[in-house]
Amino acid sequence: MANYRQGRQSFILPRPPAITAWASCAGKKESEGPLAHTFDITSQDTRFGQRTWEQAEKQVQRLALGKLAEKANMKMQDFQLIFSGDLLNQCIGSSFSLRNTGIPHLGLYGACSTMAESLLLASMSVGGGFADHAVAMTSSHFASSERQYRFPLGYGGQRTPTSQWTVTGSGAALVCAEGAGPRITGCTIGTVTDLGIKDANNMGAAMAAAAYDTIRAHLTDFSRTPEDYSLIITGDLGQMGKDLLLELAKRDGISLGGRLEDCGCLIFDRKIQDVHAGGSGCGCSAVTLCGYLLGQLQSNKLKSILFCGTGALLSPTSTQQGLPIPGVCHTVVIEGGNG
Amino acid sequence: MANYRQGRQSFILPRPPAITAWASCAGKKESEGPLAHTFDITSQDTRFGQRTWEQAEKQVQRLALGKLAEKANMKMQDFQLIFSGDLLNQCIGSSFSLRNTGIPHLGLYGACSTMAESLLLASMSVGGGFADHAVAMTSSHFASSERQYRFPLGYGGQRTPTSQWTVTGSGAALVCAEGAGPRITGCTIGTVTDLGIKDANNMGAAMAAAAYDTIRAHLTDFSRTPEDYSLIITGDLGQMGKDLLLELAKRDGISLGGRLEDCGCLIFDRKIQDVHAGGSGCGCSAVTLCGYLLGQLQSNKLKSILFCGTGALLSPTSTQQGLPIPGVCHTVVIEGGNG
Repeated sequence: MANYRQGRQSFILPRPPAITAWASCAGKKESEGPLAHTFDITSQDTRFGQRTWEQAEKQVQRLALGKLAEKANMKMQDFQLIFSGDLLNQCIGSSFSLRNTGIPHLGLYGACSTMAESLLLASMSVGGGFADHAVAMTSSHFASSERQYRFPLGYGGQRTPTSQWTVTGSGAALVCAEGAGPRITGCTIGTVTDLGIKDANNMGAAMAAAAYDTIRAHLTDFSRTPEDYSLIITGDLGQMGKDLLLELAKRDGISLGGRLEDCGCLIFDRKIQDVHAGGSGCGCSAVTLCGYLLGQLQSNKLKSILFCGTGALLSPTSTQQGLPIPGVCHTVVIEGGNG
Repeated sequence: MANYRQGRQSFILPRPPAITAWASCAGKKESEGPLAHTFDITSQDTRFGQRTWEQAEKQVQRLALGKLAEKANMKMQDFQLIFSGDLLNQCIGSSFSLRNTGIPHLGLYGACSTMAESLLLASMSVGGGFADHAVAMTSSHFASSERQYRFPLGYGGQRTPTSQWTVTGSGAALVCAEGAGPRITGCTIGTVTDLGIKDANNMGAAMAAAAYDTIRAHLTDFSRTPEDYSLIITGDLGQMGKDLLLELAKRDGISLGGRLEDCGCLIFDRKIQDVHAGGSGCGCSAVTLCGYLLGQLQSNKLKSILFCGTGALLSPTSTQQGLPIPGVCHTVVIEGGNG
């Protein structure tokens, strides 16, 4: 029987699925940032025409998915399988975006690691022959996140220097057994890691340990070094978390310095956009991947990336009960479309 | 390239993975019901020695997972991969149960369909050669669910006749490429279905349409009839939902009558246990599967079952905003251990 397991936490894809199309939809603040030109759809209306923030987040997913279908030259109802999830309680962004579309759906909860988790599972389903193609998708919305995890916006709470700004946006990628595009060649599955960080306004620190654990496991499982990648890109550690990850690696004698970047640091201009430590949320890595990163891979400006989705597995309840914030990180190797 | 897709929503497992071990942990009320003798662990302390209901739910998962390791003659840290999720906001039951265990984890959100969703993905990962084995696990807890979805227990709210009783319990199953046990031969992935039901105290009705949709898709995809199974078993429709499912099938000329049962109807004695329409929650189908059902398959008292995890994809926020309750149902075919 075929065995594609690699080391302790990883697997390879001997017939690497291709990401043949991708699409992104982002909000107003994101459209004023450095990656603005890479988004397919942007809106100046943060409600996206909906009555509530939660429905706005649903709508962001719908817009991204519709755009993906258009770019893939498919009808939305022809999608065979969608892996998706989001940050809202009971993932209602994802459930309501797919309501009555007739598309088979497997719901995920990986907090902000969901773009990587959904890509990993999409590549497993396609690489294993269980689907011809699968969509990986996720979203977040600044306003729905703030009121759920922290304070209602109207309260006007002061933000701490370590806090991050939840990205309003959704990214969707089509993973196919056949076709041209950047290819997924291997994945590493993360473990739930907890360094005892309890500050819900410093999620970068809470996630950095998980990011380091999975990156180290990945390099071990594949016998690789950071230099084997054009870029090691984490999802939403922000500046604080990124610095901590560099430090954790350095202590073990691993230099990530020249290769490491973070979507949360790329998506906003911290000097002028007042986002404190950077961007965060499922949408942060999703819109950065489904635009800038896949574009760079497609045009061979990047040869290969280690895409590291990072998630803080807290809930307001666990925080109120004084529990620490466990983190998780899943990584996906994506190689340039033209080999 | 291998293609195991079957029809529109399904796939087959040409080398069917075996469920070589399973374990369950249940609460006080469950231990007074008809399936009491099939649980591995029961507790008269509904807090399971923890300070909060949420931590109690975490503990129920830990106990089930520990028991699974014991029954499989493995160490817990040797598990290669766990698919799990639960009903709590941000799935903290699952995250905290696996915190710092070092076990690779992929988090799911499928509401009460999670036992079927996790089995489906475990069989995909093992059947595709990406892991030698994988654990499928989920949980629910009456008290953590009540206060999150409805009212704090101390409020003493009156329950409606259509309401169901969330099962306190966790089930875990080990899905292996090699070994003996009931085998997973095929799966059908559900779509998000919404009939417009808005009553958060009648989730059976909200899920019945999804159950029917997926069962119908399954029978079509595999060209089968209900009589091809010893049992078609839904997760937690309860009596109201079960009656509605029978009616929906009957309208299409499909008779499920002789084959259909529901875990929510089996787990409690509705005459004496005051649970109104029956049991519900992720734990309902999980403890019924990882005890009674797999036991019956193992001893060939059941030849094959269509295990149908049913989930209501609501959140308190979506209910408060007046939105309907979408449902989802995933099905897994499990065949008896001795062929």
